[in-house]
Amino acid sequence: MSDPLNQLVGELSRLPGVGPKTATRLAHHLLRISKDEAQRLSAAILDVKEKLFHCSICHSITDRDPCSFCDDPRRDRTRICIVEEPFNIPPIERTREHLGLYHVLHGTLSPQRGVGPRELTIDSLMKRLEGVEEVIVATNPDVEGEATALYLARQIKALDIKVTRLAFGMPVGGDIEFTDEVTLGRSLAGRREL
Amino acid sequence: MSDPLNQLVGELSRLPGVGPKTATRLAHHLLRISKDEAQRLSAAILDVKEKLFHCSICHSITDRDPCSFCDDPRRDRTRICIVEEPFNIPPIERTREHLGLYHVLHGTLSPQRGVGPRELTIDSLMKRLEGVEEVIVATNPDVEGEATALYLARQIKALDIKVTRLAFGMPVGGDIEFTDEVTLGRSLAGRREL
Repeated sequence: MSDPLNQLVGELSRLPGVGPKTATRLAHHLLRISKDEAQRLSAAILDVKEKLFHCSICHSITDRDPCSFCDDPRRDRTRICIVEEPFNIPPIERTREHLGLYHVLHGTLSPQRGVGPRELTIDSLMKRLEGVEEVIVATNPDVEGEATALYLARQIKALDIKVTRLAFGMPVGGDIEFTDEVTLGRSLAGRREL
Repeated sequence: MSDPLNQLVGELSRLPGVGPKTATRLAHHLLRISKDEAQRLSAAILDVKEKLFHCSICHSITDRDPCSFCDDPRRDRTRICIVEEPFNIPPIERTREHLGLYHVLHGTLSPQRGVGPRELTIDSLMKRLEGVEEVIVATNPDVEGEATALYLARQIKALDIKVTRLAFGMPVGGDIEFTDEVTLGRSLAGRREL
């Protein structure tokens, strides 16, 4: 195989979830598409690096500082929703249930991986809590997400601010018979009066 | 989400096997890596488009014409191995069992998808058969690969040239108990005397 091809396979293999076989398939796909298409992809990769950065307030991804959330006078400044990653924001926005601000942790606490509170944006979060009435912790319902939620709840409740967590339970349209027992347990524990 | 990010997600979604979710994950990964790494990937994509093309004889991918196979005086010119795609060549080369030349079809015959003999490099293959003693058909053992192999065999045998096909059967180290019946059937049908 020719060198530029090996080079591309090597670079593609560095992407998460892309092994040597997938990288080879992708590289050959890129060889087949038009030069225009390849240029668009190549430029799009450089563009995100050149034009985007993290908002200095909420640490979401933005092309201006402060970002369009932090800068929007119509957003409810008394409610902050905490997420692990910037890509967790769009799905929450699509629900139209949260009209407040966001705060991106850029990870979760993980003693095993050596991620402590200082490696996340927690200091910066604590500094923006003045006037905030509710912090909604929207970390993932896994071990690290839960541990991070508990840690944040302890810190923030100490300031007399309400801390809430997303409800976990059966998905809408789900079937009790096919719901795993952990989810069903959460669903029961979080039951509401009708 | 900011526009350059949507742009990148859109471009990544065009890759084969990459849906919107994977594209989003990849885009956020590219946002996180260093600018140097992003530049290497971006440049590698353009490089394959600029430096590589198809060999005018065997249609493999090359940075010079004729390619290093067709141009190598040590390769056996009497044996041509036919493959579907350029990326099928390296695994065959690694076996060191084929010391002849190659011919890349760039696809398989498929009436459903409207791919006939003219859409592949079959005309060009027929023109290079003078002096060739054996054509090894190394298309995949699936419906289209088999149909293509049969079509080629009919055309080439008419010229009194030996046509062979890869042997299909149990993988080395395989287990009869866990081999699917189609493979096992091929394995039996292709049995050899000891």
